[in-house]
Amino acid sequence: MKKINKKIKASILIIGNEILSGRTQDSNVLFISNWLNSKCGISVNEVRIIPDVEKIIVKNVIELGKNFDYVFTTGGIGPTHDDITAKSISKAFKVKYEYHKEAYSILESYYGQVKFNDGRKKMSKMPSGSMLIYNPSSAAPGFKIKNVFCLPGVPSILKSMIGNCEKYLLKASITLSVSINLRTVESNIAKNLAKIQKKYSKFIEIGSYPFFRLGIVGVSVVLRSSQKIKLNLCKKDIMNMVKKKRIKLFKV
Amino acid sequence: MKKINKKIKASILIIGNEILSGRTQDSNVLFISNWLNSKCGISVNEVRIIPDVEKIIVKNVIELGKNFDYVFTTGGIGPTHDDITAKSISKAFKVKYEYHKEAYSILESYYGQVKFNDGRKKMSKMPSGSMLIYNPSSAAPGFKIKNVFCLPGVPSILKSMIGNCEKYLLKASITLSVSINLRTVESNIAKNLAKIQKKYSKFIEIGSYPFFRLGIVGVSVVLRSSQKIKLNLCKKDIMNMVKKKRIKLFKV
Repeated sequence: MKKINKKIKASILIIGNEILSGRTQDSNVLFISNWLNSKCGISVNEVRIIPDVEKIIVKNVIELGKNFDYVFTTGGIGPTHDDITAKSISKAFKVKYEYHKEAYSILESYYGQVKFNDGRKKMSKMPSGSMLIYNPSSAAPGFKIKNVFCLPGVPSILKSMIGNCEKYLLKASITLSVSINLRTVESNIAKNLAKIQKKYSKFIEIGSYPFFRLGIVGVSVVLRSSQKIKLNLCKKDIMNMVKKKRIKLFKV
Repeated sequence: MKKINKKIKASILIIGNEILSGRTQDSNVLFISNWLNSKCGISVNEVRIIPDVEKIIVKNVIELGKNFDYVFTTGGIGPTHDDITAKSISKAFKVKYEYHKEAYSILESYYGQVKFNDGRKKMSKMPSGSMLIYNPSSAAPGFKIKNVFCLPGVPSILKSMIGNCEKYLLKASITLSVSINLRTVESNIAKNLAKIQKKYSKFIEIGSYPFFRLGIVGVSVVLRSSQKIKLNLCKKDIMNMVKKKRIKLFKV
């Protein structure tokens, strides 16, 4: 696997009315983002959730494909009428939407000739020139075309497949993170944090996230960087500030 | 409240590195979408998740503000350095970023003069001309400017505030939905569902969602429409298809 020095940026395109309507809680964003970062050093910089509408899918695939190194879509590659991702992506890239020979034979041998009906055949139709992303749990493969990776929406199936994307991806340095949980409120440390962020602005991204846990109000201060030494220095500065302000740490 | 006949379309803009990085599971999309639909008949047609970066926030607020009737942002209105939503939205609308008098006095009386530090004061800075969205749980108000509603990212606080958006919103007919859970696989009903969808294409959106529950493989067929009578007719057609195919219903 080639590892490169510059940042690699990805986007996720969740395709599905069921997420937009509030019927279903998405969990694929969190999973894909963590996988990309921890396995490949790739950061997710934008997510979009859109309906199963062809022209909207086409528009977003083109836009995100241009703006990011990789696009990961989820949803809309099953056998039913509302599964239009593969067809729409063919249109976006102006290539034929056709049976993929290998996908066809994978599905034919999985279902057996008698049960291999039109809906099941449809799952082997893809943009011409697609590479397969194998599916160990329910056979129907995802696919990759140009910089776009198409995965199913069902989280358990997606999880079983994502490892098969790895061989197609360039890798970069993995972003490390340190969390410091404090028994305080954000407005008590805002000024100090801003100063520390300024000092490390080139190397570290400092986030501050209030929480309520076990009846206690607190703040998680999260440092993210690919440079371990800078991360440790920054953590030291924050711990000094915490000590000076006599703030207690929050321990679960 | 004015109720109108045409569809009202909203988008949600989740602002926050913690969601993109996979550190935090978003739950605001589901909550806001359900609230908008059930209380106001407003559908969410696009969601974007973006980082805490000014020029990206500006670009997205302008784009979504033009393309949708309403935009709901979450996140980035707290007291720390990474909370830049209010400032960025001021830039998007080319108005001053300044203290909102009422917000200032709400926060001053909540914290008391002594504890009303710079971080806390910052939470009363907003785009000039903003209307407040009151916050019954932790005082710091959200705000509305033009068609953009800015809410906090912490789910419990957001939930306590969203009712206070209602007075600013036009309302439309509420989308009703019917779910039919079947003990079958999608590819067994794909052809029939497509036919039924075609028949009701003007009135009803039919979604098909595979699931694995209690060790059983099944499909949720979801019908969504604002027209109750059409919904019942469509359900009847599906139940007839289910009977003919001898598919069992899935009951929990």
